[in-house]
Order: sequence, then C-alpha cells, then structure tokens
Amino acid sequence: MADSQNRNFVEQIADIDADFPRWYTDVVIKTQLVDYGPVKGTMVIRPYGYAIWENIQHELDKRFKATGHSNAYFPLLIPMSFFTKEAEHVEGFAPEVAVVTHAGGEELAEPLAIRPTSETIIGTMYAKWLQSYRDLPILVNQWANVMRWEKTTRPFLRTSEFLWQEGHTCHATEEEAMEETMKMLGVYREFAENCLAIPVICGRKTEKEKFAGAVATYGMEAMMKDGKSLQAGTSHYLGQNFSKAFDIKFLDRDGVQKYAYTTSWGVSTRLIGALIMAHGDQRGLVIPPVVAPVQAVIVPIAAKKGGVMEACRKIEADLAAAGVRVKLDDTDNSPGWKFNEWEMRGVPARIEVGPRDLEQGKVVIFRRDTCQKDFYPLEGLTATVQELLSSVQKDMLEAARVRRDGRMIDADTVQGILEGVEGGNFVKAGWCGCRECEDEIKAQTAATARVYAEENTHQKCAVCGKPAKHTVIFARAY
Amino acid sequence: MADSQNRNFVEQIADIDADFPRWYTDVVIKTQLVDYGPVKGTMVIRPYGYAIWENIQHELDKRFKATGHSNAYFPLLIPMSFFTKEAEHVEGFAPEVAVVTHAGGEELAEPLAIRPTSETIIGTMYAKWLQSYRDLPILVNQWANVMRWEKTTRPFLRTSEFLWQEGHTCHATEEEAMEETMKMLGVYREFAENCLAIPVICGRKTEKEKFAGAVATYGMEAMMKDGKSLQAGTSHYLGQNFSKAFDIKFLDRDGVQKYAYTTSWGVSTRLIGALIMAHGDQRGLVIPPVVAPVQAVIVPIAAKKGGVMEACRKIEADLAAAGVRVKLDDTDNSPGWKFNEWEMRGVPARIEVGPRDLEQGKVVIFRRDTCQKDFYPLEGLTATVQELLSSVQKDMLEAARVRRDGRMIDADTVQGILEGVEGGNFVKAGWCGCRECEDEIKAQTAATARVYAEENTHQKCAVCGKPAKHTVIFARAY
Repeated sequence: MADSQNRNFVEQIADIDADFPRWYTDVVIKTQLVDYGPVKGTMVIRPYGYAIWENIQHELDKRFKATGHSNAYFPLLIPMSFFTKEAEHVEGFAPEVAVVTHAGGEELAEPLAIRPTSETIIGTMYAKWLQSYRDLPILVNQWANVMRWEKTTRPFLRTSEFLWQEGHTCHATEEEAMEETMKMLGVYREFAENCLAIPVICGRKTEKEKFAGAVATYGMEAMMKDGKSLQAGTSHYLGQNFSKAFDIKFLDRDGVQKYAYTTSWGVSTRLIGALIMAHGDQRGLVIPPVVAPVQAVIVPIAAKKGGVMEACRKIEADLAAAGVRVKLDDTDNSPGWKFNEWEMRGVPARIEVGPRDLEQGKVVIFRRDTCQKDFYPLEGLTATVQELLSSVQKDMLEAARVRRDGRMIDADTVQGILEGVEGGNFVKAGWCGCRECEDEIKAQTAATARVYAEENTHQKCAVCGKPAKHTVIFARAY
Repeated sequence: MADSQNRNFVEQIADIDADFPRWYTDVVIKTQLVDYGPVKGTMVIRPYGYAIWENIQHELDKRFKATGHSNAYFPLLIPMSFFTKEAEHVEGFAPEVAVVTHAGGEELAEPLAIRPTSETIIGTMYAKWLQSYRDLPILVNQWANVMRWEKTTRPFLRTSEFLWQEGHTCHATEEEAMEETMKMLGVYREFAENCLAIPVICGRKTEKEKFAGAVATYGMEAMMKDGKSLQAGTSHYLGQNFSKAFDIKFLDRDGVQKYAYTTSWGVSTRLIGALIMAHGDQRGLVIPPVVAPVQAVIVPIAAKKGGVMEACRKIEADLAAAGVRVKLDDTDNSPGWKFNEWEMRGVPARIEVGPRDLEQGKVVIFRRDTCQKDFYPLEGLTATVQELLSSVQKDMLEAARVRRDGRMIDADTVQGILEGVEGGNFVKAGWCGCRECEDEIKAQTAATARVYAEENTHQKCAVCGKPAKHTVIFARAY
C-alpha cells in the first residue's frame, strides 16, 4: 500500500515525557503498525506491524526447533467442562473466556470456550498419545490466536484476541521438566536481548502472580521507558497438576504407570509493544535491525540530477543481494518528508544519496538509534551498512541496559518502594513471603512483585520487618 | 516424540482399491498426520502433518511476497450484522457460522461470528484505510484459522476449523482486479504442479458453484486416485459487490469518488488431503520432496558392524549441510520394521547403509514413488540424493498427469456422464448454461460442474440438447 494516507507529522505525536500512554497510542496508530478492530478490545495488525511479528516468529521458531521442538496445531474450541478439571486453572481463566453457544444454526449441547490458553485441550490429546517412556519427552509448540476477554485494552499490550506461541511439553521426571522450564526461559532471554535488544530480568514469580495451575512460573520482565515493567514472556513448571487432571500417564521402564511432568511457555504479540516502549523516542519508533521490516531505507536527494537514481538502484540491488531488507523511497515526496516518515517508522539506517556527495564517492548514513549522521564511502557500502546494522543492534541493547541499570534501586520500606516506583524505577526490597505483605505493597504503591531477584540481598521484609525470605523486584507493570 | 505408539503395520491399512475412504482415514491416522479433536468435526494437526503445512506455507508465502503482497492479521470475531451487508454472502455463510454469545461472564449486546472467511471484516477496514488512488492497489494476505460448521467432516478435507490463507486485494479498475484474480490462480497452479506434484485443472466455476458474493470464481481442481475431484484452491473476482456493501471508495485521479474492485483467493489445509489422495498407495503416503518433512531417511543395516553408524552419521551430516531434510533412524527397531514405517510415512528416499555395500563403496537407495531400489556410489552421494529427489518430484507430477489424462473422457448424454464418473473419470460434456440442466446432472450422476473447460468442444447440452454454451468438466467431488 502506498503511504498517502499517512501524511502525519512528527509534531502530532504526543510528548513522550509528558504523556507516555498517549505517545504510545499515537506511535502505533500513525506508523500503521496496528488499528482498532470493529469489536471492542480487538486489534488489526497491519502489514508493517505484522512484518515485525513475522521476524519475531522466524527468530523464535528457529530457536525452538534447534532445541528439539516441533510445531503442531490444536483446535480453537475447548469444551467448557475441560477447564473445570484443574481447579486453579478454571478459577484463573473461566471469567475471561468467550463462549460459543450456537453453531450451524443450532444451540450446542455443551458450550465451547475459545481457547484462552491450551493446556486443557493439549493435555487431553497427550493423554491419548502417551503410552510408554519411549514416547517421552513430547516437545511441541503451537503458533496460534487466543482470546481473553479484558475490560481495559491497548493495542499489542492487552487485547481480547492476540497471537502467540505456546510450548507444551511432557517429561518422565521432575528434573527434566524443570530443566525444560529453565531452558525455554533462557531461550526467551537470549532472544529478547539479541533480537529485540531488550535487557530482560528473569526470575521466579510469587504464588500470587503465577500462572493459574502452575507449580512455579518464571517470568521475563522488561523495563519500558516510563520505568514500568512489561511481562514479556513466561515459562511454567506445571509439575503433575495437569497430568493428574487430564490423566497424562506412561508406562515407565520399571513397568509402573506414572504421571508425566509437564511444562508450558509462551510469548505473544505483546513483544511488539515491548520493543516500542523500550526503544521509542519523540520521533517515533526505533526498531532493532534483527526484527525491523525495513533495515535500511534509501532516500535520493535531488533525484532528477544525473546519476542519483541509478546510484540508488545499484545500492538497493547490492544490499538486497546481501540479504539486507532494503527499501528505496522513490515517491515524489520531499526528502525532508521522507526523513520524518522513516524516522517515525523506526528504520534503523537511512542512506541519503545526493549528487554532490556522489561526485566525491560518498553517501550520508543516518542511524536511527543515536540520530547521528556521517559520511561513508560508496566503495564497500554493502559491508559498511551490514556492520552499521550490527552496531546499531548491539548499541541499542547496551543503551537499554544502561537505562535500566540506572533505574534499579533498593528500598527497605514501603515508602521507599513507593518513592522508587514513582520515580520510574524497579525497586528491590525484602519480603517475608506472606500474601498480606505482598498485598499491602500493591495497595500502597500500585507496584507488584515482578520476579524474585537472583540473590536475597535484603535482611528484612519492607512491610512487616520479619526476616526476608526473598528479595523481590517490585515495579508498576503493564 | 518417539515412535513406539505407532507400531502399526502396513497390513492394517485398508485396501486402497476396495475401500478408498477407509484407506484415507487409516493412512492419515496411522502416519500421525492428524487426530480427531474432542469437539465433533475438529482435527488436531500433529507434528508430522503440521510440518507439511509449514512447507506449504513457506512455498506459498514466498510466491505471495514475490507478487507484491504483504501479510496482516484481522480479528477472529465478526459482528453478525456485517454478514447481512452483502446479500449472497450472508445466504452462503450464515448457516455455517459458529456464534459467540457470551464473553467475560456476560451476554454480548451483539452476537459475534467466528470468521468463516474475512471479506466482511477486511472490507470494513479497507473502507477506513483507503482514501486515494495512490493507496491502490492494496495487496494483503492473511494466514489464519477459520470455522465453518459442517455436518459431515473428514480430516483435512472438511473440518469445522481449518487453517488457510486468504488474500484480499483492492484495485482501481475492473481490469486490474481481473488480472490479480487470474495471477493468483496462476500462482496456485504453479505451486500445485511444482511443489505438490499435482497436475491441476483451472477454470471458471458456474454460478451455482461460485463463492457467495463473487462476480466470478475460478477454481483449481485436482484428481484424486479414486477419480474424484478435490477443489484445491479458488480465486474470486468480487467486482464492486463488496466495495459497495462495505463502502470501499477512493478519490481517483480525476477527482471523482469511485468504488474499488476487489478480489479474494485462498487455499487451506485441504491441500494436505489433496496430496495424500493424489499420490498415496497401498503402502501409505507418498509425499513430494518439496513439501516432505523428511526428504531422506537413513537406515543402518547391521548397525553394530564396524563403520556402519559412522558412515550413516557422515551421510546425515553431509546431506543436512546441503539443506536436505534428512533423518537417521538409529532406533533399535529392525531394518524391516523401519522400511515399512518410513514407506508408510511417505519419505521420498531411503538410504540403506550396510557393511558389505560399504566395503564396496556403495549404498542402496529406495525411492518411494516408484518403489525401486538401486546401488549408488558413496562418493558424491549428497549430489546423487539431491538429483534423485528432484527426479522424484518431476516424475511424481508426470505420473499424476498420465493418470489424470487417462481418466479424462467426453460424453454427450447424462448417461454418458454417469458411466464416466462411475468409472472414476472426469467427464467433459456440453452444457446449455441453465441451472435446471446443471441440477439434473447432479441429481442423476452425483457429479457436479467443476470448472469450464478452456475450449468449448461440445455442440450440444448433454441434458436438453440445446446448443452448448460451455464445455464443462463434471466429476464427483470431495
């Protein structure tokens, strides 16, 4: 699609410091990542947004396969009765499901839920397929749409329907299932850092914040530019909770029937929201090269001057041949308009090709992350651009790390946590482990326990002063 | 997953000539392509089946992008009122929809349909996005699940939920939209022939058989081994029917507001059923190399003899490095068991590596399509296997073409059509163009008009004897 309907200017994006939520909405709509669907709470992922998702899928899918997983596809509709088999699970998800009651012109005998997550239906199939220890492990992933009816929604962050992947695995022992849980958390972390340039914090969640039905949930938390946290992925150790509820058993080597140990893990189109809010600035999106739909845009300056368009086309062909996702903007908009447009859309590198520079055998490259411009020789330009993209990728991660580390503080009191999160920080504090203290912190600060810190560095609970069982990272969260 | 739950033998597959439908069911279940879901009419696409779908997606997506299309994602749920905006469309699809009436614990103000196809919701968004002729063409595709509540279902062929892609495009003129309709039909044909090795017949559908709401539907028909036809893909020219119903307008160069011309086109997981029934034989699946999850399987003979496993691993590594999807079956099953298993699963090439052959610097390769075995030198084996796979691909198409051409007959009477289709043929016959004669043929022969033949080679209608307007290809169909 051409860009004529997108004649918006940077001035129209709300001030990122004054009104971060409005800045977010402006950016996602104006850059045509997404639009609102006709049904409240739904989103349309437009081509520019979907291209980011395709790049995310490509990178993750590669990693899932490299760790031995296969993809499969399970039905969208789940009999409501399945949910009731696991007590915590039904409590967590039943209030959010969308329910099909009629189909083919008739009322259904049993209402069907649109999957909010697929443990129950996949568990039912695994129970049928799994016979012997020789069938283990079962390592399956699904790319799918899911639906959770939410009251308050925002594109990518929280929508009634979203796209995700959900891995579901079965193992013979607790140890193997725990190893899988942590392995996939590690895959997510490596992906977040190296592909999205987001320095995530991984750790175990409290009982209150864990997945409904899990023994333990491990989360990956990302700091957004407003200092709030976004849960960017989770990996659940389900123990035998679902295998007992769904009768997922196998005949072990010793001739004994045993329940399997299962895991599940997922990330979603939320990741697009994460990268927008982790990297974006007043000009708009800043997309890390690995997942950018367009990695380099070529803008001709004085396009009618001899040789300019030819040079642009040659640069484009060379970059494309080297596997760079490149776009030549040969529309009749002015260079200034194009600069604004592609900056707003977050393209990592812009190559400006003008007649005078060409005569001197050089071009200008603007890099979006630092907004710096420099001259580069035409000779060897493809390699130059590739190196630059790889620097942008690394530097974006490093810049995000510096931002985050500068906003990690410690507190010893609820007041300290409150001041910390109001200042846009993640706050480490001691916690005795009881639900009352966790609830108290939320009530006083609007911050929740994101994950346990790796080490317990606090002596006392910030609320009750009893000995701290864990040091917890608290933050306000999306 | 290991294979222990699949200890089925070839003898258990029903006779392909005596009971083709049972043969089909046996094959899809025993090869673990698919399983029945818990809700009637649903299927679970298991990893081996889903891997075929991934290969199909990969090949098609490449072609869609090469022809200028981008992917996007539109909501699953469509307000019921949207369907009523296009009269034929609602008549065609309303009886088949599954309806969400409750969500988030409350009854909805308006019931929502799970998409059976997305013209209505995509049309609504295009109406919002399209402003000027400069926004045209809009060339968008969606990979998604859809739902059509069917009474009689069979895995891959007809299930309440299935996976597909649906292209939806907008154009300034009738001519461009027709060109797009035919271009995508051509993409489907080239894909079917070169990737699925199925020699399809493409042509326009009758009014009775066209898509609900289209001006014209063009279909791609594939002959199955029982002589029945399977509609393997369709491309619809929608004219201004949907643009008028959904107000998809643009300001043209001449300053006049005009309705766009739209198209839609789709193929689905049905294609997996098509390739099974076009190529399968008594031993099970025969999968064309381009879409085969495993292109070559290595079976060690007397694996404990010195050097055999080492040679197998080297062959595996060399083939994998060359991009061949290869599997070394190093389980402790007997070679005979493995032969049966991988033949049933349709792997195009089997490499048998035994100690005596190795001493002479050779291996045996079995090709699944012809079931022929030959000796090949170890030296240059990777190139040999690649050439062999490419021969298998070509020869499968040619064999299917010969089969189909031998089953294309002409008839001048309804009785002739009946005898033809009962003999497992596609039958070309003249048709006057009226609905009564078309209905009569269906009533008498259980065959339907598949597509118009390219040329009108018949003088008279097979039913009424009036001048033939079209020569139509009739067949019984899935």
